[in-house]
Amino acid sequence: MENQRGFKTAGKSIRCKAAVCRNPGKPLVIEEIEVEPPHAWEIRIKILCTSLCHSDITFWEISTGPYAVSPRIFGHEAVGVVESVGEHVEEVEEGDMVVPVFHPNCRECRDCKSQKGNECSIFGKQVTTKMPRDATSRFKGMDGEDLHHFFHVSSFSEYTVVDVVNVVKISPDIPVDKACLLSCGVSTGIGAAWKVADIEEGSTVAIFGLGAVGLAVAEGARLRGASKIIGVDLNEEKFEIGKKFGVTDFINPTGCGEKKVSEVIKEITDGGADYCFECIGLSSLMEDAFHCTRQGWGKTVILGVEKHATPLSIDTYFLLRGRTVAGSLFGGLKPKSDIPMLAHKYLNKELNLDGFITHQVSFQDINKAFDLLLQGTCIRCIIWMD
Amino acid sequence: MENQRGFKTAGKSIRCKAAVCRNPGKPLVIEEIEVEPPHAWEIRIKILCTSLCHSDITFWEISTGPYAVSPRIFGHEAVGVVESVGEHVEEVEEGDMVVPVFHPNCRECRDCKSQKGNECSIFGKQVTTKMPRDATSRFKGMDGEDLHHFFHVSSFSEYTVVDVVNVVKISPDIPVDKACLLSCGVSTGIGAAWKVADIEEGSTVAIFGLGAVGLAVAEGARLRGASKIIGVDLNEEKFEIGKKFGVTDFINPTGCGEKKVSEVIKEITDGGADYCFECIGLSSLMEDAFHCTRQGWGKTVILGVEKHATPLSIDTYFLLRGRTVAGSLFGGLKPKSDIPMLAHKYLNKELNLDGFITHQVSFQDINKAFDLLLQGTCIRCIIWMD
Ligand SMILES: NC(=O)c1ccc[n+]([C@@H]2O[C@H](COP(=O)([O-])OP(=O)(O)OC[C@H]3O[C@@H](n4cnc5c(N)ncnc54)[C@H](O)[C@@H]3O)[C@@H](O)[C@H]2O)c1
Ligand SMILES: NC(=O)c1ccc[n+]([C@@H]2O[C@H](COP(=O)([O-])OP(=O)(O)OC[C@H]3O[C@@H](n4cnc5c(N)ncnc54)[C@H](O)[C@@H]3O)[C@@H](O)[C@H]2O)c1
Ligand SMILES: [Zn+2]
Ligand SMILES: [Zn+2]
Ligand SMILES: [Zn+2]
Ligand SMILES: [Zn+2]
Repeated sequence: MENQRGFKTAGKSIRCKAAVCRNPGKPLVIEEIEVEPPHAWEIRIKILCTSLCHSDITFWEISTGPYAVSPRIFGHEAVGVVESVGEHVEEVEEGDMVVPVFHPNCRECRDCKSQKGNECSIFGKQVTTKMPRDATSRFKGMDGEDLHHFFHVSSFSEYTVVDVVNVVKISPDIPVDKACLLSCGVSTGIGAAWKVADIEEGSTVAIFGLGAVGLAVAEGARLRGASKIIGVDLNEEKFEIGKKFGVTDFINPTGCGEKKVSEVIKEITDGGADYCFECIGLSSLMEDAFHCTRQGWGKTVILGVEKHATPLSIDTYFLLRGRTVAGSLFGGLKPKSDIPMLAHKYLNKELNLDGFITHQVSFQDINKAFDLLLQGTCIRCIIWMD
Repeated sequence: MENQRGFKTAGKSIRCKAAVCRNPGKPLVIEEIEVEPPHAWEIRIKILCTSLCHSDITFWEISTGPYAVSPRIFGHEAVGVVESVGEHVEEVEEGDMVVPVFHPNCRECRDCKSQKGNECSIFGKQVTTKMPRDATSRFKGMDGEDLHHFFHVSSFSEYTVVDVVNVVKISPDIPVDKACLLSCGVSTGIGAAWKVADIEEGSTVAIFGLGAVGLAVAEGARLRGASKIIGVDLNEEKFEIGKKFGVTDFINPTGCGEKKVSEVIKEITDGGADYCFECIGLSSLMEDAFHCTRQGWGKTVILGVEKHATPLSIDTYFLLRGRTVAGSLFGGLKPKSDIPMLAHKYLNKELNLDGFITHQVSFQDINKAFDLLLQGTCIRCIIWMD
C-alpha cells in the first residue's frame, strides 16, 4: 500500500536507525531497530529533527529503581512528518507536519475540556515507558527484544510511534527547528510564565537556572512586561544570552560572598520577588526559590524535575504569610491548542525562538548533544536526522 | 478628663484583672495588672468577651526557643469597646464597638492597597510580643515588671491596648459574642474558602480538622455550592456539628482500616478533591491533605499553625502534576473591609455564626476554656468579662 505522500511503508514494520540507551548514563548506541506500524489511535512519525531536554538527561542518569529501564529510546523534543496512521486517527494524515508531545491532551476528558489545568484525566496516569493504551512497545531491537519508550515520544529514532493524544499538528510555515523547540522546554517556560504564574506588568521575577526552560520563562515574563527579571545560574555565560530574553539582573550563587541568594534577591526586589521559578531540578534550589518570594502573594513555580526525587521542604510559617507553591508539567499549556498559538506568535514575530538554538549536530553525533548540555555550553542543540 | 461615653480613665493607667501566663503550658493566673494609656496611633479597649483559638494553645504550650516568652497575656479573638484613643487616631472614638485583630491592616502600604493579598508590608513584620510601633509593652505586672503582649491583641485582660492597624470598627447591631468570632478563627476559615481557594460551585472539598477554623471553611464552601464537603477529624462528635455547616462526609482516620485517608478521599471524589484545607497544625496532616488533592488543579490550603515548627515535605513529582499549595493568615481577608462584610452577611442571615458557640464561661473560669478546647468538646467557648 502506497499512501498519498509517497510513503511506501504504511502497514509494514520499518527498519531504521535509533540511538538506543543500553546502559543508564552511558553514551547512546546508534542501532538498526524495527518500528512496528501504528495500532489504532496511533501515529507513526518520521522524525525530521529532535533536541535534547534536561529531562532526558535526568532519566538517562537514573541507574536504579523503577525509573531505570533499559534498553530504551530517549528523546521527547522533536518535530516530524506523519508517515502513517492507525485506525480511528482523523486528526492528522500522512504528510502532515507534527510535533509529538510528552504531555497528553485527549480533548475529551473533564480535564482537557476544562479551562483550569492542563492534565489529561484519561491519559495522564499511564506508565511512560510503553504505549499508553495497551502498555506494549512498538520498537524491537536487533535481537527482536522490546525496546522501552520514553515519555510517549522516543524521538531519538528515525521513526517513532506516538499516540494521537501526544501529537499536535503544526503549520508547515514554521521552520522545523523552531517547531522542535515548541515540543517541550520552550513551551514549558513560556506557559509557566503565562498560565501558571500569570505574570502581570511591572512584576518582579527570579529564575533559577537559565537553560532553555528558564530562558523561556524570561521570554514569557519579558512579553508580559515584568520590571525585573533576575537570572540565577552557576554559569556566567548564561547572563549574556539571558539578556536577549529580557534578563535584567544576574546572580551567580558562588559570587554572593556572605550573603544568601535570597538576601540578594530581596534587596533587588525590595522585599522579595513576585514570582520565582525553579528550572534546574534540585529541591534545595526549589527551597531557595521559595525563600526569595515576597510576603503577601509571592508565588514559586516548580518546573524542574528533581534529579534525585528528593522532597521539597517547606517552612510552613513562611508559607502562611500569603505564599504559594505550584508545580506544572508543560507549563500549564494544553498542547493541542497552545502549541499552534505559540507557532503563530513566532510567525508574527512576537516571540523569540531563534535565540534558543545555539548548536546543531547530525544524528550520528547525538552523544555530543549530551556533552554540550551537560557542560552547559548549549541552550538547545538541534539533532538533525538526515 | 472624662470622655463622652463616661470613661473616666482616659490618659491614666488602669488597674484591672488579666489572666497572665507565668509558665508555658500551665494554667493562667488571674492577677491585677496595670494597663498604660494608649500611645500615638493606639487604642485602649475594654474587652467585652473573648474566646480561645487554637493558636493561643499552640504558643502557650511552647516552652523553649524564641517563641517562649513569659509572663505574657494571651488571647486574640475578642470584641470590646473603645475606652480611649491615643494621638492621631481618627478611625474610632471612645464608645465604639471594635474587634481587635492579630493581622494588621494599615490601608496605606502597597499590600494593603493591592487587591491581591492580605499582608501589610509595613506592620506585617513586627515582633508579636510587643506593641508594633515602638516594641514596648503597655502591661505591667504586680511587681511593676513588663508583661508580654500576644499577637498584638492580648485580650485575656479586662483592658488591652492595640494599635489602630489591629482594630476594626464594627456595627453595634451584631451581638457581641458573634462579633467575637469574626476576630480570628471563623473569619480565617470563611476567607480561606472564598479568597484563597476561591471555591467554585460543584467543587469537592476536604477539610482536615473540624474545629472553628475547619467548620468555617465548610460554611464558606457550603455557601459557594460545593458538591462534597468531607471532614476529617479524630473526634466523631465533630461530624454531627459539621452537618450544620454543610459537611457531607466524615472520615475518622483511625477508622479507615488498611486504607489511607487519601485513598478514601480519592474514592469519594473520583480521583481527589479540588480543594483540601489543613486546619489542625501538623505537617504530617498537611502532607496528607496535599496527597488528597486531584491531579490537574488540586489546591491545598494550609491554615494550621504547625505545633512543632516541623517543615512540610512535598513530593515534587506529585506537585508537578498541576498541584498548588498555598498558605494564608486570616484566610486572605483584609480585616478592615472584610470583617464588616462578614458582620453584614450575618445580620442578613446569610451566614451561620451561632453554631460555632458551644460553651460560655466567665473570665475567672478561663482555664476551663483551655480544657474544653484541648479535650475537643467545644468549638468556641465565649469567655465573658463581666
Ligand atoms: N515541568 C516540565 O514540564 C518540564 C519540561 C521541560 C524540562 N523540565 C525540567 O526543567 C529543568 C531545566 O531543563 P533545561 O532543559 O532548561 O535544562 P538545562 O540543563 O538546559 O539548564 C539548566 C540550567 O541550570 C543551571 N544550573 C545547574 N545547577 C545549578 C545550580 N546548582 N545553581 C544554579 N544554576 C544551576 C545550569 O547552568 C543550566 O544553565 C530540568 O529539571 C528539566 O527536567 C521540566
Ligand atoms: N492561618 C490562620 O490565620 C489561623 C487562624 C486561626 C487558627 N489557625 C490555626 O488553625 C488550626 C485550627 O484552629 P482551631 O481553633 O479550629 O482548633 P481546634 O482545636 O478547635 O480544632 C482542631 C480540630 O482538629 C482535630 N484534630 C486534632 N488532631 C487531629 C489529627 N491528628 N487528625 C485529625 N483531626 C485532628 C481536633 O479534634 C479538632 O476538631 C490551629 O492550628 C490554629 O493555630 C490559623
Ligand atoms: Zn522536556
Ligand atoms: Zn484528556
Ligand atoms: Zn486565632
Ligand atoms: Zn499595610
